[in-house]
Amino acid sequence: MDEPHPYSPASLELPGFVPLQMSREFILGIFTTFTLVIFAGGYSLTGRFKTLRKVDRVLVCWWLFTGLIHFFLEGYFVFTPDFYKLNPTNYFAEVWKEYGKGDSRYPARDTTIVLIEGITAVVEGPAALLAVYAILKNKPYSHSLQLATSLGQLYGDTLYFATVYFIKEELSAPGPIYFWGYFVFMNMIWIIVPLLVACRSWGYISTAFESSQKQKSKGANKKKK
Amino acid sequence: MDEPHPYSPASLELPGFVPLQMSREFILGIFTTFTLVIFAGGYSLTGRFKTLRKVDRVLVCWWLFTGLIHFFLEGYFVFTPDFYKLNPTNYFAEVWKEYGKGDSRYPARDTTIVLIEGITAVVEGPAALLAVYAILKNKPYSHSLQLATSLGQLYGDTLYFATVYFIKEELSAPGPIYFWGYFVFMNMIWIIVPLLVACRSWGYISTAFESSQKQKSKGANKKKK
Repeated sequence: MDEPHPYSPASLELPGFVPLQMSREFILGIFTTFTLVIFAGGYSLTGRFKTLRKVDRVLVCWWLFTGLIHFFLEGYFVFTPDFYKLNPTNYFAEVWKEYGKGDSRYPARDTTIVLIEGITAVVEGPAALLAVYAILKNKPYSHSLQLATSLGQLYGDTLYFATVYFIKEELSAPGPIYFWGYFVFMNMIWIIVPLLVACRSWGYISTAFESSQKQKSKGANKKKK
Repeated sequence: MDEPHPYSPASLELPGFVPLQMSREFILGIFTTFTLVIFAGGYSLTGRFKTLRKVDRVLVCWWLFTGLIHFFLEGYFVFTPDFYKLNPTNYFAEVWKEYGKGDSRYPARDTTIVLIEGITAVVEGPAALLAVYAILKNKPYSHSLQLATSLGQLYGDTLYFATVYFIKEELSAPGPIYFWGYFVFMNMIWIIVPLLVACRSWGYISTAFESSQKQKSKGANKKKK
């Protein structure tokens, strides 16, 4: 007989399911440690770049953090359809088995989820990592890249939340941590931060155009004289 | 008994379906006329804006064309779930009844389609119309807006094409015009044009930053002297 799974709805069939082997505390602990290392280490190391402002240094950390998650963790999900069957299992598989308690469409491999995650892993992952380089080197495409990548994250996450309103079944396992913690809180991060980053880059782009337009009209005035 | 519908698969149930009342030639003729009027009229009228280059005038027409389609035509689809039951019918309902022959997920009201069309109608429609104004008035946010809107169109259309690979049923009615004409050709326009517009705006943004960086370093050099 198949092992019972912890996901909702209970009617979901997952033949060959291998139960979680790591505790929730261990899985979340590793993730929290990774987050702290990236932000503390990244912020500290970028202090060497004297031209970077504090907010740019935080953004370097954000893009590194989100880029690694998109590319490796979400990429793993996209390209490992049988992650919940693996035995022995690994940390990435355990993360997705645990996250599935917040949204069973992950183990159930819902088409829209796989597609959104696919675009996120393959397009936005590398784009986010390129944004790290672009900020450090103050590239002229830095703000276009940050705007484009943030809007991509926002599109995907909006769609992710919106699809739920069309589904009548309960997708989260019982317990507030799964719905409010995993499903709402974790995903709200990728709504709020991209919105802030997109607005900031939008503002910088407008300022750059205003200053280059002023320069042009100054040039034109000089010629007239 | 229910009227038989022209969509694929034949097993799709559409209770209350009202057959098309306009001919395919009439529906496509009106659409072609609308396209020609927008592009010919828009290009001619924008000739009054002496600062606009030819490519900007074509882009004003494109954004007006795509904005009106997103907002009114796609908006109609999103907010009229029973368009295929309407009697008497109207032009917009007839367009969607006809387009459904290329992709039966429209009358079937597939969740992902409704969501993509919803974002397109509510976000990208007004954004595209704002881009018309932004280009005409040479606003400093013109290229951010064009980049953002184009990438939104590209995301939606990529997802639209990609979902098909997960569906085993035939979604287009028999006949090359439905698959190649409606499904492939019509949607490819919203892949190719947004890609070109996004690349162009990206280039302009980079140039604006390069010129404002040069200006800053000039300013800094002057101070040193």
